[in-house]
Amino acid sequence: MKLSEICNYLQLPPPPRDIEIVGLETLDRATPAHLSFFHNPKYFSQLEQTKAGAVLVAERFAKALPTGTIPLITSNPYLKMALLTRLFVKPPFEEGKAQIHPTAQIGDGVVIGKGAKIGAGVVIMPNAVIGPEVVIGEKSTIYPNVTIYRDSIIGKRVTIHAGAVIGSDGFGYAHTEEGEHVKIYHLGRVVIGDETEIGANTTIDRGVFGETRIGKGVKIDNLVQIGHNCVIGDNVILVSQVGLSGSTRLGKNVVMGGQSGTAGHLEIAPFTQIAARGGVTKSILEPGVYSGFPARKHREWLKLQALLNRLLKKGK
Amino acid sequence: MKLSEICNYLQLPPPPRDIEIVGLETLDRATPAHLSFFHNPKYFSQLEQTKAGAVLVAERFAKALPTGTIPLITSNPYLKMALLTRLFVKPPFEEGKAQIHPTAQIGDGVVIGKGAKIGAGVVIMPNAVIGPEVVIGEKSTIYPNVTIYRDSIIGKRVTIHAGAVIGSDGFGYAHTEEGEHVKIYHLGRVVIGDETEIGANTTIDRGVFGETRIGKGVKIDNLVQIGHNCVIGDNVILVSQVGLSGSTRLGKNVVMGGQSGTAGHLEIAPFTQIAARGGVTKSILEPGVYSGFPARKHREWLKLQALLNRLLKKGK
Amino acid sequence: MKLSEICNYLQLPPPPRDIEIVGLETLDRATPAHLSFFHNPKYFSQLEQTKAGAVLVAERFAKALPTGTIPLITSNPYLKMALLTRLFVKPPFEEGKAQIHPTAQIGDGVVIGKGAKIGAGVVIMPNAVIGPEVVIGEKSTIYPNVTIYRDSIIGKRVTIHAGAVIGSDGFGYAHTEEGEHVKIYHLGRVVIGDETEIGANTTIDRGVFGETRIGKGVKIDNLVQIGHNCVIGDNVILVSQVGLSGSTRLGKNVVMGGQSGTAGHLEIAPFTQIAARGGVTKSILEPGVYSGFPARKHREWLKLQALLNRLLKKGK
Repeated sequence: MKLSEICNYLQLPPPPRDIEIVGLETLDRATPAHLSFFHNPKYFSQLEQTKAGAVLVAERFAKALPTGTIPLITSNPYLKMALLTRLFVKPPFEEGKAQIHPTAQIGDGVVIGKGAKIGAGVVIMPNAVIGPEVVIGEKSTIYPNVTIYRDSIIGKRVTIHAGAVIGSDGFGYAHTEEGEHVKIYHLGRVVIGDETEIGANTTIDRGVFGETRIGKGVKIDNLVQIGHNCVIGDNVILVSQVGLSGSTRLGKNVVMGGQSGTAGHLEIAPFTQIAARGGVTKSILEPGVYSGFPARKHREWLKLQALLNRLLKKGK
Repeated sequence: MKLSEICNYLQLPPPPRDIEIVGLETLDRATPAHLSFFHNPKYFSQLEQTKAGAVLVAERFAKALPTGTIPLITSNPYLKMALLTRLFVKPPFEEGKAQIHPTAQIGDGVVIGKGAKIGAGVVIMPNAVIGPEVVIGEKSTIYPNVTIYRDSIIGKRVTIHAGAVIGSDGFGYAHTEEGEHVKIYHLGRVVIGDETEIGANTTIDRGVFGETRIGKGVKIDNLVQIGHNCVIGDNVILVSQVGLSGSTRLGKNVVMGGQSGTAGHLEIAPFTQIAARGGVTKSILEPGVYSGFPARKHREWLKLQALLNRLLKKGK
Repeated sequence: MKLSEICNYLQLPPPPRDIEIVGLETLDRATPAHLSFFHNPKYFSQLEQTKAGAVLVAERFAKALPTGTIPLITSNPYLKMALLTRLFVKPPFEEGKAQIHPTAQIGDGVVIGKGAKIGAGVVIMPNAVIGPEVVIGEKSTIYPNVTIYRDSIIGKRVTIHAGAVIGSDGFGYAHTEEGEHVKIYHLGRVVIGDETEIGANTTIDRGVFGETRIGKGVKIDNLVQIGHNCVIGDNVILVSQVGLSGSTRLGKNVVMGGQSGTAGHLEIAPFTQIAARGGVTKSILEPGVYSGFPARKHREWLKLQALLNRLLKKGK
């Protein structure tokens, strides 16, 4: 799509010169064929170093752009980006020829989208739906009624239990001044490592841009929610009903107990354990056991419980 | 069905005169062709003003009924009503002719019930199941493996992600004296406004009577539970794993963070924000930010956390 | 399978004599044709009394075995058992002839596995998947997109709402010294009593060995998680988003409020009520109402809240 068409769609002045834009991307991942956007001051250094062909940017930051990059000046780059995602999103389902290994077993009622690649020895059970361009590695097992959205990459010897949903749109909206929510169509994907197991009715959202990444040997229980752009290290264990907000990063071998959760955009160090029902509100850089909400060191949580019990006894 | 047959089924004495009953309804919604019931003293004024043809009612309240309405005297109106719902419920699925707009795209394996109406430009992806009499407005998108129960009304440009269930029976039972639970078949429906988006594996129960109503532009994340007869205002945001008990009323632009929840039969004022994991136990009439369980003003919650931290330091 | 083959697979020395092994079982359930394992000292008396043909056991405990039982000495019986489950698991889905009562109604797109038995008057709605050897009792109702895994036993007049998953593999792993997780394939099943109702997108895991058992007249709401080997008494009520860890035992008529949960391997006395969001961390043997996390008697929880409120007022 021509940059001039994009400006027209967004009701912005025409660009100083026209270029072909193949997609939207974050500042750090963009190439000269991408349009990007700058709205979070935290990424200012990325603004200065981006290779994007053009960037939606507020006027006062435009001069920080590299000379090769065209600034598209706007007071609300985030909203403009959101409006644009609709133009670049691919159709969620397309029928057409898929590549299915002759040793794969495809159950009754399974529907496989155009361009999907199903590896050797894969078992897909009845009524699962595999989106276009999905890749499933050898010997993986997909249970009934699973839905895998387009472009997802599933490793080898992965198990996905019934009703799980992989690659759904994440929860992301820009907001107009009138308080309406403008949907950000998610252009990224989900990538799942080898030997990972995913529980029944668990949901894993795709990246807004880039990837939601699940490592190797990860074990995810039933009814777990993993937000967009999470990065889950190898051998992580997530017990039932855990909820990870967008862009959570879990180091390898992290264990999160049942019904625990994380606020978004934080990091948990490798080998950390979060007790059942723990609510992590900020990054945990020191491994250990953490409990409660807001999560604190387990030993402190135990002390707090003892203090509350004492208070209760005195209060009687 | 004749009122005399109903009395016979419930082992009640025959009515003073016979009338034709087309359905069960709440006191305020009933017409002379409906049977209603009175068990909650809170609705006494509805009892006095009902237009119902007949009402299941305890003896001491029967004299409050308008003269035109036939009282059916029973010591347990709620249980009798529950027993009756079974007689009035329609079959959950019926095959037959649906009305599908020629521009709608219906995926492989989709099953559409009798009398459903699918609007222009609607996309229904593989293996979704659309119940009888469901209406889906133009340009809405239904992802794979979604189930929409009978009679649900879906607006225009609505998006429903994979595995979501719309219109399931709510959780309602009457109880016998022996502690057995008698199912209340849900005779109501779900109505969803335009531009609303519903996340993967989210569940929205139908009304017992009347409607569960979701406004326009509402954004609901994955694995959210919405109980029967909730009323959700326009532009509300519900983050993943939120749980709303039955008959919760959320004003417009309410935001509820991940894993938060509400007790039933309460109201939250427009523009209120409930922090992640907040548990709302009573109505919130003053907009603001609320946190914790039981939910309190966020500022107070922060103070409480600071006090507990101080206590912990002293306690060491 | 010959015991000698099993030893070979596990890289253990050959057994003193060879026997035919038909399956893996717990010590208390094993017959002379079963292989069992001992790793939890809590079950020492079972070790002494087992009827198993052979047992994986650490050297120091081997002498406690009955004379008829062959000890297979290993330093990590649990890991060895986990490795073996893969050999004994049956294929999750098999096509073939099922036994369907002529009065059963089977919807479009329903797939039923080999050897399943569908009773009189059963209704299975479109796109549900019923695994091999599943039994569904008369007049039960299965909504669309439900998945029932192999070998599950569903009672009479049971209702299972859309998207529910019955019989998925529980969350169980052994761990190597390198921190890798070795999947325990679940060889048990789920058994559901008559008149039970299961909500939309709820998940119930099968037993590791033996059964996950749901009683009669149990009412389970949407998005509930029930772990492997739970035993749920008659007439129990589980409100939406409850999570039960593995091997939880609920007495009859227990009520658990929304978003509440239990740690594993504990027991709750009949007629106990757990308030919404309560987190039960140890067995409750005295019936009553319990609240909070960790759960305590509701009256105490109320006092604690009052004390915290007082603290907050003083702290201002």
